Amino acid sequence: MPTNKQIILHSRPRGEATADNFSLVASPTAPLQDGQVLVKHHFLSLDPYMRGRMNDARSYMPPQPLGEVMEGATVGEVVESRSPKCQVGDKVSGMGGWQEYSVVDAAQRGALRRLDTSQIALSHYLGAVGMPGVTAWYGLVKIIAPQAGQTVVVSAATGAVGSAFGALAKVRGCRVVGIAGGPEKCRYAVDELGFDACLDYREHKDAISLSKALKQACPSGIDGCFENVGGMLLDAVMLRMNDFGRIALCGLIAGYDGQPLPMAYPQLLLTKRLMLQGFIVTEHPQVWPEALKELAMLVASGKLRPRESISQGIESAPEAFIGLLKGRNFGKQLVKLLV
Amino acid sequence: MPTNKQIILHSRPRGEATADNFSLVASPTAPLQDGQVLVKHHFLSLDPYMRGRMNDARSYMPPQPLGEVMEGATVGEVVESRSPKCQVGDKVSGMGGWQEYSVVDAAQRGALRRLDTSQIALSHYLGAVGMPGVTAWYGLVKIIAPQAGQTVVVSAATGAVGSAFGALAKVRGCRVVGIAGGPEKCRYAVDELGFDACLDYREHKDAISLSKALKQACPSGIDGCFENVGGMLLDAVMLRMNDFGRIALCGLIAGYDGQPLPMAYPQLLLTKRLMLQGFIVTEHPQVWPEALKELAMLVASGKLRPRESISQGIESAPEAFIGLLKGRNFGKQLVKLLV
Repeated sequence: MPTNKQIILHSRPRGEATADNFSLVASPTAPLQDGQVLVKHHFLSLDPYMRGRMNDARSYMPPQPLGEVMEGATVGEVVESRSPKCQVGDKVSGMGGWQEYSVVDAAQRGALRRLDTSQIALSHYLGAVGMPGVTAWYGLVKIIAPQAGQTVVVSAATGAVGSAFGALAKVRGCRVVGIAGGPEKCRYAVDELGFDACLDYREHKDAISLSKALKQACPSGIDGCFENVGGMLLDAVMLRMNDFGRIALCGLIAGYDGQPLPMAYPQLLLTKRLMLQGFIVTEHPQVWPEALKELAMLVASGKLRPRESISQGIESAPEAFIGLLKGRNFGKQLVKLLV
Repeated sequence: MPTNKQIILHSRPRGEATADNFSLVASPTAPLQDGQVLVKHHFLSLDPYMRGRMNDARSYMPPQPLGEVMEGATVGEVVESRSPKCQVGDKVSGMGGWQEYSVVDAAQRGALRRLDTSQIALSHYLGAVGMPGVTAWYGLVKIIAPQAGQTVVVSAATGAVGSAFGALAKVRGCRVVGIAGGPEKCRYAVDELGFDACLDYREHKDAISLSKALKQACPSGIDGCFENVGGMLLDAVMLRMNDFGRIALCGLIAGYDGQPLPMAYPQLLLTKRLMLQGFIVTEHPQVWPEALKELAMLVASGKLRPRESISQGIESAPEAFIGLLKGRNFGKQLVKLLV
């Protein structure tokens, strides 16, 4: 039985999450029961929602338990099987957690998804052709529902969700404007991802300043906002939204360390008759097949070429995760497992 | 030609609106052209939205022009007619403005509505069976869309909109909880309007305190919120909302004098997957016939007995309006015209 290195949640953050909140343990993988398979993970997904689960607070998911392996999505390969549903060598995705191996009941509905890697790299099933991609799809198609020619804005534009959002919106004939941190990400959004414009929020000290830049980038106003960040970014977008605009609220990463994050101008929701919808994509399983089909086609055809930041080895996961929260990643943040 | 006393907007408020912002003028009514009628107003409606129009700011309606008669809804009687569409003696509603008479093109679509006063008092067509009632109907039926047994909360509960909202929600089997200013209004909401509970926001110094009282009044949480006020009232309701709750945002009277009115906890919109929709009922003309039919039935059957605060004479309109903004009214605020 191979040794399995794991990252457990050691303590809850006070304010910012730090590497001390995690610890590394190792133990042999458990022997398989009938119906189980052993999956060797190739990649672990790091996602902003995990920060919320580190707190002991009511949210849309229960807190991550202390002393247990951090939960998270993985892709990998079946290396041992006692299930007729999987063969050794199958490529699969699942919620394997922050560890090198997982033992899975293959018959449990949704526990494993078999992946076709003939046209799509395995890692993309954690990003553009996985939960982040479907998140972008749901917010764009089901909440913002733009018409061709309308303008949509997305924050964290070069991340896994933002880059998929951009490609999906361009296909629908929208003007797509991103907000990202730093000139390199903004150039990448325009030059590689096909955004019509991308604004560097770090150049702006407040929402008024950012909203003036948005006015330049969105000469016809903003019809839809896909919000991952909140705070002054959302305030600035709201100042520029058109009447009857839609806001898909997916994340508020600016407040994940517990700092207050008021919305400065809620009266705009009234005066512009805006619709705002908070959502969690895992609650909408009915859209996944349609969304994944479109996302796979975009990646296979090269219309969406997702960038990845890949840290090496399970030991690197805590620092990579903290980097993600600070925006140090560039594209989808992954951990490559080296066993 | 009778003399017509009128209130014009004299100046725009800085901060709170004051009586000095208005002035009284008088002039003879204009002679009728073919197709026109002269309406003698019996009642003028005072509504919170008028405060927004006193500012020279972009909103959902253009600003009220300086030096012109304040716009507003009226009910009255045709006293002279050069139109085949109206006879002298017809009771009608229209946007007659803050004045004693108006001259109206009877053929202009929507300019006048003929009213049946056999079962419904004329004044109620400015309240429960008029724009405020339809506002409540739209927010409840089209945005909150509650199921029987769900809990809904409305602020400014004893006002024209809130009291109609309560009756409409009770008919649908909801638990209805109001928020109002002062013990007398709260008693009235429960004893006369049929609310299940009503909280006096003046007893609470902040949103946390009010949210604790809401927890008592809403033991199963809050599924729908009809918001007229904003500020700490909305913050407190959001703290108690259930997952997938709906917020119909109709007014933010707490911020109408221009003070900042941040939303303290926008992260709840995400973690509870709330939907918030700002709306203006005049943009949804398709619902008016159905809504008015139900509202007329509720009033005619006595299931909704709207209370009114009636000030006397056009000269009293500015002070009555300022009182409305401060919550000094009790039920629908009207001005009775004494000509």
